[in-house]
Amino acid sequence: MSEMLILKNVRPWGEAAIDLTIADGRIASESSASSLAEAQTIDGKGAIILPGFFEAHTHLDKTLFGMPWNHNNVGSTLIDKITNERNSKARLGLDPARQSARQVALSVAHGTTHIRSHVDIDTEHGLNGVLGVMATREKYADVIDLEIVAFPQSGMLIRQGTKELMDEALSLGAEVVGGLDPCSMDLDPKGHLDVVFALAEKHGKPIDIHLHELGELGAFSMRLIIDRTRAHAMAGKVTVSHAFCLGHNDYLAIGNLLDELADAGIAIMTTGPAGYPCPPLIRTLDAGITVCSGSDGIRDCWSPYGNADMLERAIFLGMRNDLDRDDEIRRAVEVVTTGGAAVMGRQDYGLAVGDAADLVLIEGETLAEAVVSRRARPLVMKRGKVVAREGAALFETE
Amino acid sequence: MSEMLILKNVRPWGEAAIDLTIADGRIASESSASSLAEAQTIDGKGAIILPGFFEAHTHLDKTLFGMPWNHNNVGSTLIDKITNERNSKARLGLDPARQSARQVALSVAHGTTHIRSHVDIDTEHGLNGVLGVMATREKYADVIDLEIVAFPQSGMLIRQGTKELMDEALSLGAEVVGGLDPCSMDLDPKGHLDVVFALAEKHGKPIDIHLHELGELGAFSMRLIIDRTRAHAMAGKVTVSHAFCLGHNDYLAIGNLLDELADAGIAIMTTGPAGYPCPPLIRTLDAGITVCSGSDGIRDCWSPYGNADMLERAIFLGMRNDLDRDDEIRRAVEVVTTGGAAVMGRQDYGLAVGDAADLVLIEGETLAEAVVSRRARPLVMKRGKVVAREGAALFETE
Repeated sequence: MSEMLILKNVRPWGEAAIDLTIADGRIASESSASSLAEAQTIDGKGAIILPGFFEAHTHLDKTLFGMPWNHNNVGSTLIDKITNERNSKARLGLDPARQSARQVALSVAHGTTHIRSHVDIDTEHGLNGVLGVMATREKYADVIDLEIVAFPQSGMLIRQGTKELMDEALSLGAEVVGGLDPCSMDLDPKGHLDVVFALAEKHGKPIDIHLHELGELGAFSMRLIIDRTRAHAMAGKVTVSHAFCLGHNDYLAIGNLLDELADAGIAIMTTGPAGYPCPPLIRTLDAGITVCSGSDGIRDCWSPYGNADMLERAIFLGMRNDLDRDDEIRRAVEVVTTGGAAVMGRQDYGLAVGDAADLVLIEGETLAEAVVSRRARPLVMKRGKVVAREGAALFETE
Repeated sequence: MSEMLILKNVRPWGEAAIDLTIADGRIASESSASSLAEAQTIDGKGAIILPGFFEAHTHLDKTLFGMPWNHNNVGSTLIDKITNERNSKARLGLDPARQSARQVALSVAHGTTHIRSHVDIDTEHGLNGVLGVMATREKYADVIDLEIVAFPQSGMLIRQGTKELMDEALSLGAEVVGGLDPCSMDLDPKGHLDVVFALAEKHGKPIDIHLHELGELGAFSMRLIIDRTRAHAMAGKVTVSHAFCLGHNDYLAIGNLLDELADAGIAIMTTGPAGYPCPPLIRTLDAGITVCSGSDGIRDCWSPYGNADMLERAIFLGMRNDLDRDDEIRRAVEVVTTGGAAVMGRQDYGLAVGDAADLVLIEGETLAEAVVSRRARPLVMKRGKVVAREGAALFETE
């Protein structure tokens, strides 16, 4: 017999309460049929139910969470931070397997059921990060779906041998080809993007490029990405992360870029960064662009902030984009749920019968109230199994 | 005999642990003298100790905290929000005394010991707000120091009679003269500021002006405020809240304005707003300007966000200003502590012998770690009395 359970008295997206029957890790029906009376029953106590959160942009391999506090006195440029980080990993004893597992537990505790993690690849640390996160992916396969982006954090071309390591990581099972600031890292945007798209074509895998470049420089790189996405017929398979250039003060140019991105089928990832220009959330969505979000690095050598809570992330998206209305806050919640699912290509995601039972309960009078209050999650479920309760993961990590 | 207690094993600002003896509501010594052995002892368990937080800009009279969720579908302009709010107060049954008390309890629970609250004054609601917050100020005098800014939220000149109400509020005991966007609210910057400074002169009270005006418009109003501050010899007695115009992209002009503000002795209040341009924190401090911070409105008709936690506010200041280094995070904490004390003119504030025992314990390995983790505060003390423990106020509100 298949495993069944009934989740009673839960409110999908804050609407009227229903009972959900879960069987074989999926939503089996929207009622608690009497024939299932013997199944295990969980009382949702009127909590709001959402499909699990998508952490669609983070760096599992390099969080310092759970390690002794790292006193940060690093310079402020991107290169300062990248160099410091690459040099600090050994000194700090950063173990990608252990650290990624810790962050997975933190994410699951907050209701995340899917993670896309960029993982550093460079000629100093080789595939250490990728192998470590792969170990976590395997070990915690029952509690999280984890997707790895092979990420050339220290540049693709300027450090000879990186391209080959990227190729190896993709052969080993990294799901996504990463890239980074085509102009400012490698100082060769054509060369950088040629490699990224060639790797994607060779391995038949999607692309997710970090683009911090500001203003006209970022817009230039963005147009190169749009051109290649069309040329390689990769609509629906390319994500641009951060896209700070979409936050600049040129309404005409930004509008045109948004239309081009929508037409090319390119998705955008934004964390709603308080300190940087960023994509205007509602206009980006209204242009027809798929938008997902993520925590970015959690307590790492770059930044001490972050807690992997995607419900808090919805608050950050809301505060950054001046989303005060209830309908706007709902759209922020969609970004951290259905937006991530669209980017990661999950078809069986949602609250409909047949969808995977990847679920989170959140407490609140209304959806918006639940967001701004971000209380500890009463329950998190992965493929029909309870994996966290009352804000704590039900499994151990090192 | 005076009341005494010993606070053992606490780390001032995260430094080495000490014991503090508290007597008569003040810090009596930095050791636990044996002669005080009979006094009550509290084990700080190595927590970090700070002087209490200053909530230097909020709106106690109009929080909806603790009331049924207010579905927000208001338009996005300032006038939309002001008009909606003025019209909603009666409909929602917003009682300024009850609501301000609720927010006071929330603030105290998070470690705030001093609040400056702007309180609406307009010809529709008269002094209802001021009288309600004054009732809270009196009722909760043992747990919070509360300063009232008479605030012409709906304009000073465009609604005849507001000026007289402001005058009355100041006579009744409001401590500060408020103002609001001299150009855009009254469409008469000279007229608006003439009234504000005349009221300040008549009552011998300081000034705190909301300035949301952007770019050149805000800089224009700012220069008018600077001129009048000098003419009225009010150095050290004028605060400009928000000062969004200091966040604009003209390094030369902003640098000059910061120097002028410093020279005129004008303080700046910034919430570190994610969605608006705002004063660059470190450069503003480095220019020699006193900076304080606040939560602004908590869950009101404007915005659903906020929880009155000034430790979280330090995170927002940090994220908005890209403060990743430990020394920078400390400066953000100083803004929500000593910065507020300077603006509100508290001389006996701090951790030195003789200072008022307005104290908060925060848990953390280091000060920066305590900030980013923002755990529930183990203990909050007001004038030597424990007023909150483990994140909960020890007093009731309606």
